[in-house]
Amino acid sequence: MITKHKTADVSFDSLLKIFTVPEGPDSTLTKIEERLSQNLNQFLREHIVAEEKPLKEIEKDFFYSTIPESPEFVSEHTQHLLDTLVSHSVHTSAPSFIGHMTSALPYFLMPLSKIMIALNQNLVKIETSKAFTPLERQVLGMLHRLVYNQNDDFYTKWMHSAQHSLGAFCSGGTIANITALWVARNNALKAQGEFQGVEKEGLFRAMQHYGYQGLAILVSERGHYSLKKSADLLGLGQQGLVAVKTDHNNRICPHALNEKIVELKKKNIKPFAVIGVAGTTETGSIDPLPEMAEICREHDCHFHIDAAWGGATLMSNNYRYLLQGVEKADSITIDAHKQLYVPMGAGMVLFKDPEAMKSVEHHAQYILRKGSKDLGSHTLEGSRSGMAMLVYAAMHIISRPGYQLLIDESIEKAKYFATLIQAQDDFELISEPELCLLTYRYIPSEVREALKLASPECRKHLNELINELTQFIQKRQRETGKSFVSRTRLNPARWGKLNTIVFRVVLANPLTGHDILSSVLEEQRNIAQQAPNLMAKILATSQTIEAS
Amino acid sequence: MITKHKTADVSFDSLLKIFTVPEGPDSTLTKIEERLSQNLNQFLREHIVAEEKPLKEIEKDFFYSTIPESPEFVSEHTQHLLDTLVSHSVHTSAPSFIGHMTSALPYFLMPLSKIMIALNQNLVKIETSKAFTPLERQVLGMLHRLVYNQNDDFYTKWMHSAQHSLGAFCSGGTIANITALWVARNNALKAQGEFQGVEKEGLFRAMQHYGYQGLAILVSERGHYSLKKSADLLGLGQQGLVAVKTDHNNRICPHALNEKIVELKKKNIKPFAVIGVAGTTETGSIDPLPEMAEICREHDCHFHIDAAWGGATLMSNNYRYLLQGVEKADSITIDAHKQLYVPMGAGMVLFKDPEAMKSVEHHAQYILRKGSKDLGSHTLEGSRSGMAMLVYAAMHIISRPGYQLLIDESIEKAKYFATLIQAQDDFELISEPELCLLTYRYIPSEVREALKLASPECRKHLNELINELTQFIQKRQRETGKSFVSRTRLNPARWGKLNTIVFRVVLANPLTGHDILSSVLEEQRNIAQQAPNLMAKILATSQTIEAS
Repeated sequence: MITKHKTADVSFDSLLKIFTVPEGPDSTLTKIEERLSQNLNQFLREHIVAEEKPLKEIEKDFFYSTIPESPEFVSEHTQHLLDTLVSHSVHTSAPSFIGHMTSALPYFLMPLSKIMIALNQNLVKIETSKAFTPLERQVLGMLHRLVYNQNDDFYTKWMHSAQHSLGAFCSGGTIANITALWVARNNALKAQGEFQGVEKEGLFRAMQHYGYQGLAILVSERGHYSLKKSADLLGLGQQGLVAVKTDHNNRICPHALNEKIVELKKKNIKPFAVIGVAGTTETGSIDPLPEMAEICREHDCHFHIDAAWGGATLMSNNYRYLLQGVEKADSITIDAHKQLYVPMGAGMVLFKDPEAMKSVEHHAQYILRKGSKDLGSHTLEGSRSGMAMLVYAAMHIISRPGYQLLIDESIEKAKYFATLIQAQDDFELISEPELCLLTYRYIPSEVREALKLASPECRKHLNELINELTQFIQKRQRETGKSFVSRTRLNPARWGKLNTIVFRVVLANPLTGHDILSSVLEEQRNIAQQAPNLMAKILATSQTIEAS
Repeated sequence: MITKHKTADVSFDSLLKIFTVPEGPDSTLTKIEERLSQNLNQFLREHIVAEEKPLKEIEKDFFYSTIPESPEFVSEHTQHLLDTLVSHSVHTSAPSFIGHMTSALPYFLMPLSKIMIALNQNLVKIETSKAFTPLERQVLGMLHRLVYNQNDDFYTKWMHSAQHSLGAFCSGGTIANITALWVARNNALKAQGEFQGVEKEGLFRAMQHYGYQGLAILVSERGHYSLKKSADLLGLGQQGLVAVKTDHNNRICPHALNEKIVELKKKNIKPFAVIGVAGTTETGSIDPLPEMAEICREHDCHFHIDAAWGGATLMSNNYRYLLQGVEKADSITIDAHKQLYVPMGAGMVLFKDPEAMKSVEHHAQYILRKGSKDLGSHTLEGSRSGMAMLVYAAMHIISRPGYQLLIDESIEKAKYFATLIQAQDDFELISEPELCLLTYRYIPSEVREALKLASPECRKHLNELINELTQFIQKRQRETGKSFVSRTRLNPARWGKLNTIVFRVVLANPLTGHDILSSVLEEQRNIAQQAPNLMAKILATSQTIEAS
C-alpha cells in the first residue's frame, strides 16, 4: 500500500487504494480484528497491561503536535496502536471492572457496529439516511411506549408524523437533559401578545416581558453534575439550578421541594422545571416520582426525569415499580449505552406530548425543509450516526424479557453484595442498593465504634483519616489492575453529614460473579495493610477516643 | 443461541452467551461482515435497492411501537436488517452520490472502528479511557497546530495540562459551534466586582450588571442553520444572530459587518462574537478572514470560524492560502467526519488561548475532580466514545501530504466540473467552486436569454417555473437511484436576488471520476424531458418574452 519514507511519498493512486482495496486476510489489522472477534475478553486481557503505568509516562507516547509528514503502513500503525493505545486502555468489559457504568457488550453488537460504520449514514436528514430515519423514530416510539404506555392509535398517529417528535436520539444523557430543559424553558417563556417567545427574542426580553426576576430548575442535591452545566448553557446560570435536600436514602424530600418552589415564587423567580432523578449517579437512588409529579402539576412546572441510568429498569416487570410515577413526567432521559448494553453514544430524551418539541423546531433551505421528516429539525445536534440501529437490534435480539433478566440479575447481585458487606466486621455499607449501585467503605469494627463515641471534633478528625485510607485503597486497587471500583464523596446522615469518601460499585456486568465480589473485598482489606502508617494512626486515634 | 418462540423463552444462561460467545465463522452476521470487508462498494451496490421506495412504504417496516416480547436469533435478525434497513439505506460512499458531505471512507477505518467499539472507552474521564485521554489531547493539539502553528514549547506546555484545554472533541460541528459561542458568551460576561459571571448568575443578571440591552452574534447570511439554534439555546434568541449581507461570491461584506456592529453598539447591544465561515454549507465560499479578524480586534469581539467543512483544506500547502487569516481566530470548528474522511461523529472545536475554556469548566465529586486530567471538565457533552482514535489513525496512515492530495484533487475536480457545466448550452453555473462545492441548474439557452430580457414581473414568473423544474429533476434523479445531487435555494445577484433553486454538488469522494460528472449532466438533461408539460410551459413563456 503506501510506502513509508523519511520524506513524503504519496501518490493519488496509492491513496485511491485505501478507499478501494480492503485489508488483506493476512494483514495485521485483519488478524487483530479476527482475534478480537473470537474472544474479546481474552484479547483484552492479553493486550491491556495489568499494572497501571503513570499517566505522565503514557503521555510520552502522545507527545508530538505535528501531523505526520510521511504515511505509515496500515499494519505498522495497527501494531503501534496495540502497543501504545490498546495496552494502556481500560478493560471496561472485565467482570472485575465494577466502578463505572460502562460494562460488557453483547458480541453481536461488534460486527453490527462495523456495518453501521460502513454504511456511514447521517441521520440529520432523510437524504443521507432513508430507512434509518423511520428506524430511529421507531426506537424512540418503543422507548416512549415503555415509559408512557399510550395505545396503538397514539403511536400510529405520532411516531412517524413529520411535524412531531416523540423525542430525540443523541450522543448521551447530558445532551438529552439539555434538550429537555431547552424545550421546557422555551415552553415556559413562549410567545404572548407582542412577545415572540424566548426562542426568538432571548432570555433578557423574556424576563422583561413576563416580569420575572429569575428562572430556576429544581433537583435533589444528588442530581447529575451536568445539570449545572445545562443551567449555565441555557443562560440561567449555575445558580439557577436549585439543589433540594435529600432524605437518609438520598431521595429528594418532597416537602422541601414544595417549600423551595413557594419560596422562589415569592421572590418572583419562575421555577419552570423540576428534575426527578431515577437512579442517581452516585448511589442509584430513585426520587419519589409521584409526589414530585403532583407538586409539578400544582405549580405548573415541567417535570423532567433523569433516568439516564435507571430508565432501563422499566424493562423489568419485577422492578418496574421502583420507577412508579414515571409516566407522569413531561420528559425523560434514558441512555442506551448504560443498562441497555449498547456501545457508547446512545442517549435519548422522550417527551410525553408529541407537540412539546415544537418550541425548538428549526429549518433550513437545503435540508430540514418544512414538512420534511428530517430528524434534524428537532435535535440539538446536527449530523448524527446511525447508532439507533444498535438499540433496535439489541431490543430485538435480547427482547424485553431478556432485558428483564439482566436487570433483575444486576439488582439481586447488588443486594447480595450489600449483605456480604454487612456481614464483614471491617466494612461499612454506606448506601443500600435500590438499583444495582451501592457505596461502602473499609472501616475496622473498633474504628467504627470509636467513630460512634467520638466528640464532633474528634469524629471529624478520625473520619478524615478514614477518608484518606479509602482514597488510598481505591487508587492502589485501580493501579494494581486486578479490579476497579470508583469513589465519590457523600454526606451520610448517620455520621452527622460529614464529608465521607466511599467506594462506589456498579454491578451491571452480567459476567461479574459472586466470587469476584468476595475477592474485591479481600483485596481492599489487604491493600489497607499496605498503608501501615495511616492504619496505625487511625487505630491509635480510635483507641484514644475509646479510652477517654 | 436464544431460541425464538411465540412466548418469551429466555434464560440467564442463554443471555450470558451473547456476552461471551461470539458469532461463529459460519453465522449470517459473520458472513455479511466478511463480504462487506472484502468489497464494501459491491456489497452496498448489491444490497441497497436502486430505485427509491416511497418513505410511506418503508415506514411500514418500522411500525410497531412495542419492544419485542420474544428474542430473535442473531442470524434471523441480521437477515431482517439486510432486507428492511440496509436495502433502503443510502449508498453514501457511491462515487455518484455527490449531493452531501458524507462520502467514501478509507477501508482501514472499518476494522479500526470495530476495535474502538469493542474497547468501549468513555472519554469523559481517565478512569474509563486512560491512554485514550492523552491520545485525544494529542489529536486536538495536532489540529490546533495545523490552524495556529504555535511552536513546540507551546504544545509541550499546554497540550497535556490538566487545567487547560486546546479545544474539545465532540459529536459534530453543531456542538463544536455551540461550545465556541458558549465560551465566548461567558468570557464576554465574566465576573466583575460583585457580579459572579454569567455562568453563575445567568444572562438576566449579566445584562443588568453590564447594562446591555441585548447580545448579538454576527455571521454572513450564508451561515449554517445550526447557528440560529445555538443562539436560541444560549438564551440570546434567534434574533440575537444577526445576518450580514454577502457579496456576489457569497462572502460576507466586511464593510457591512462593521456597520452592523457600530449600529448594534449604538443601540447598546453587545456584539460579543463574529463568525467567519470557511466553507459555507451551500456554496463552499470562504469569508474574508483577515478583514473580519481586524474588525473583531477593533470591536473586541470573539472571532470564531466555522470551518466544519473547509478546515481540512489547511492540510494542503497548495490551497491553505484560501483560509488565510485563520490563525487570527479565537476559536475554530473542524469536522473530521467531513473532509478528513472519518466516520460520522467526529467534530472538534479549537481555541487559540489555552485559558479560554476556563469559563465553562465544571467539576463533580466522583469524576472531573479539580486537577484531574479528565476531559469531561471542558466538554459540553458528558460520556463520549473514543472516536479520536480514528482521527489519530487516519492522520498517521494518510499523513498530511496524503490529505493534501485528496484536498487538491477534490478542488480541481470541482473546477473541472464548473468548466464542464459552463461549456453546456443548457446548464448554468450559479456559484463558482472555491472549495469542492458548486451549484448550478438546468436552463436551456433560449430560456436563459428570455430570463435576461424579461421584465421583473415576467422574470419572477419564469424563474419560478425553472425552480419547479430544478426541483423535479433533483427529486426524480434521487428516486431513480443512479446518482444523487442535493438542492438548495440561493439568491444570485445576477438574477436580481430572485429565489433560485439550484443543484448542489460536493465533490469530496476520491472515487468520483470525470465520466460520472458527465453522466450526471446527461441524466439531468434527460429527466427534464420527462416533464413535458412543464418544459412546454417554460419554453412558451420564454418565447412570449422574446417576442414582446
